[in-house]
Amino acid sequence: MQALKERILSDGENLGRGILKVDSFINHQVDPTLMLEAGRELAARFAEAGATKVLTAEISGIAPALTTALALDIPLLYARKTKPVTMTEPVYVEAAPSHTKGVSVFLMCSPEFLGAGDRILIIDDFLASGQTIAALVRMVRHAGAELVGIGALVEKAFEGGRSDLEPLGVPLHALVVIEGMDDGQIRFAR
Amino acid sequence: MQALKERILSDGENLGRGILKVDSFINHQVDPTLMLEAGRELAARFAEAGATKVLTAEISGIAPALTTALALDIPLLYARKTKPVTMTEPVYVEAAPSHTKGVSVFLMCSPEFLGAGDRILIIDDFLASGQTIAALVRMVRHAGAELVGIGALVEKAFEGGRSDLEPLGVPLHALVVIEGMDDGQIRFAR
Repeated sequence: MQALKERILSDGENLGRGILKVDSFINHQVDPTLMLEAGRELAARFAEAGATKVLTAEISGIAPALTTALALDIPLLYARKTKPVTMTEPVYVEAAPSHTKGVSVFLMCSPEFLGAGDRILIIDDFLASGQTIAALVRMVRHAGAELVGIGALVEKAFEGGRSDLEPLGVPLHALVVIEGMDDGQIRFAR
Repeated sequence: MQALKERILSDGENLGRGILKVDSFINHQVDPTLMLEAGRELAARFAEAGATKVLTAEISGIAPALTTALALDIPLLYARKTKPVTMTEPVYVEAAPSHTKGVSVFLMCSPEFLGAGDRILIIDDFLASGQTIAALVRMVRHAGAELVGIGALVEKAFEGGRSDLEPLGVPLHALVVIEGMDDGQIRFAR
């Protein structure tokens, strides 16, 4: 997606150690129009997947997952990292190690909204090490739902998440793929 | 907003003690089309406010704030509750007591995205005790930005947040106002 690539080049910042700062348009401040366009593009890539629900993890996955769900006209479900007071029944819980935060977070989903018959498209802002997405995949399986695709705005190919997720055998798309971030550069795959 | 009121009646759940469960369409599972419509309606209510940015607090404020920002064609800024690795510079921090969680959370915003010249419209999913919104208001002030309006999807009038916020002298709108939740009922104001 050319607009996203250009935005990363103009407003993204390579902080070193593989950390890409995009908090002026993706994950602190958000450009809603760019996000709408990205959601449409992701929806187009998964048009044939027959998804009945988009699943993401709070927090920064919510914006792109919402616009993808909007374009596909299906509900969005976001896994919670903190238990709200309204979550009183047993829930699915998966631990997702976060290498950027140095701790594991727990992702929680209510069985009310995830179960057999659901065809799940996972959408997140980043596909990096793939650990958050892998935790969502485990949750989909434990719930007896079917995984039909995995999408992200930005893939950091050099973190290797794709190789862990490809064996799942579902379509896997990122709108922008970054191959390398050495020497302060941001090098795109295509 | 009639569609939201009807949805609360059909899918919302009064859990007692003033707790309204709306996690099938607002804050766990999200109905993107309803959220788009709510964003348009909030944008219309604040059309004259001249906002240059929408501000919310993660997590459940993100969806309605994003669709409001989209309709107003301005950026969305969401205050973070956890510090991402990309947040390396000093940030504005405000404590927001959460009576439903029993603890205070810290809301963080980067001065890069909030400062003099910004005309801020605060949007959240709920206006209840008003404490989260009050923390965002303090942040707006400390940053030297101007508050131009406060909006929410649902106001729980019986929690009294409005009376704390009205002295601010800015337009304050909720799409749906709930006056009471006694006896397992959900009683709307209008």
